[in-house]
Amino acid sequence: MSYYPLRHPAAMPDAVATVQQLRDRVATFIHERDWERYHNPKDIAISTNVEAAELLELFQWRSDDEVDLRDPEFREAVEDELADVFVYCLSLANAIGCDLSDVTLRKLAKNERKYPASEWRGRAR
Amino acid sequence: MSYYPLRHPAAMPDAVATVQQLRDRVATFIHERDWERYHNPKDIAISTNVEAAELLELFQWRSDDEVDLRDPEFREAVEDELADVFVYCLSLANAIGCDLSDVTLRKLAKNERKYPASEWRGRAR
Amino acid sequence: MSYYPLRHPAAMPDAVATVQQLRDRVATFIHERDWERYHNPKDIAISTNVEAAELLELFQWRSDDEVDLRDPEFREAVEDELADVFVYCLSLANAIGCDLSDVTLRKLAKNERKYPASEWRGRAR
Amino acid sequence: MSYYPLRHPAAMPDAVATVQQLRDRVATFIHERDWERYHNPKDIAISTNVEAAELLELFQWRSDDEVDLRDPEFREAVEDELADVFVYCLSLANAIGCDLSDVTLRKLAKNERKYPASEWRGRAR
Repeated sequence: MSYYPLRHPAAMPDAVATVQQLRDRVATFIHERDWERYHNPKDIAISTNVEAAELLELFQWRSDDEVDLRDPEFREAVEDELADVFVYCLSLANAIGCDLSDVTLRKLAKNERKYPASEWRGRAR
Repeated sequence: MSYYPLRHPAAMPDAVATVQQLRDRVATFIHERDWERYHNPKDIAISTNVEAAELLELFQWRSDDEVDLRDPEFREAVEDELADVFVYCLSLANAIGCDLSDVTLRKLAKNERKYPASEWRGRAR
Repeated sequence: MSYYPLRHPAAMPDAVATVQQLRDRVATFIHERDWERYHNPKDIAISTNVEAAELLELFQWRSDDEVDLRDPEFREAVEDELADVFVYCLSLANAIGCDLSDVTLRKLAKNERKYPASEWRGRAR
Repeated sequence: MSYYPLRHPAAMPDAVATVQQLRDRVATFIHERDWERYHNPKDIAISTNVEAAELLELFQWRSDDEVDLRDPEFREAVEDELADVFVYCLSLANAIGCDLSDVTLRKLAKNERKYPASEWRGRAR
């Protein structure tokens, strides 16, 4: 795992950023604070929930019509909370040592079998 | 957004998988089921919470000592639930149209300023 | 704390059931299984989240119009999950030893000051 | 449902407070702000999750040893967040019109059958 500085993040959009590069950035952030000692899987799972709830809180008491992502302040808040959840996913992968892309593709393949498109097209429940 | 089949996922580890490639896989899965109609940001935020809680549930009533990621069954369960949370992060990025790597690096930079390493080294609260 | 059997619960509606009576029922359930050893506050807080998410899951992908509480099966599922969250609230009060009615009235009084009715009438955010 | 003022809450400990009395207090709080319009079951379920996560957040990154409920500030924070979850349970019961004590006893009876004490004594999973 490489530890390079975060201060001046180069532009690194989704089209070129690999999952590993993002994992390394998160690992660097944690390492610079000596926070590995706190990062046991159970506590990261707790933090993932806490951040997911902060994301959800932004939609609390808002009807679909009132959710306006063209509002720059609201959009940035949503993106920030989404980023927090995403970061904890990367952090948990770092902590337990799994390949996140692999497990994601494996889980999508399971979901393919569980929800065949032919049966589930157009219904979510 | 390209829609290529998920049936035979090629090996695509974190070292080479771009975030966009994973986003496209998730978009394909949703598109094949015509589930875009359900994928409004509020409901994806709800699902993110539900999946985060399923991840957390695996650690319920287990002390740190009892969390054994060398147990292959437990590990696969954790990886699967982590993947579910991760997939909803990718899905929310698809639904609101943001660059997930960009917002992640932006949020890490904010966290850098909020938690300077010099002050926060070794303490998490 | 009295430990009386749960097998044949007498009718005990909200109009007569005291909070203490419900707390005692929950304490009995835990005691009969020797589960006090697991009931540390952190793990109960985890369980509260897990159950709250199971409640939320019932509303996932449902618009307000599709939430039909006259459907007896759906209603029972909602009531059961609500009961689970409620039980963990009672359990946490038992574990930390606080008077739940007292802290509830104290918190409502704080909310009164934070959200004066004169200012907040008709708006939730 | 009676609407009496919350300003000077009389002492009402668990030993005498009925669930209905607490439900009425919460209903009064909501009614004085004309918030019934927001209180659809799905949004209350969201709020229950948000508050449960705020409760959980207090235990984040703390080992069992570091959770000290004799610390008055920490205790009040835990009690306040517990109260928030409890209040949303009462609010959901108000919104869907169910008897909370009844559904709680019904759920405990289901749990009795699912986890017979003779089989589950001393083990939580």
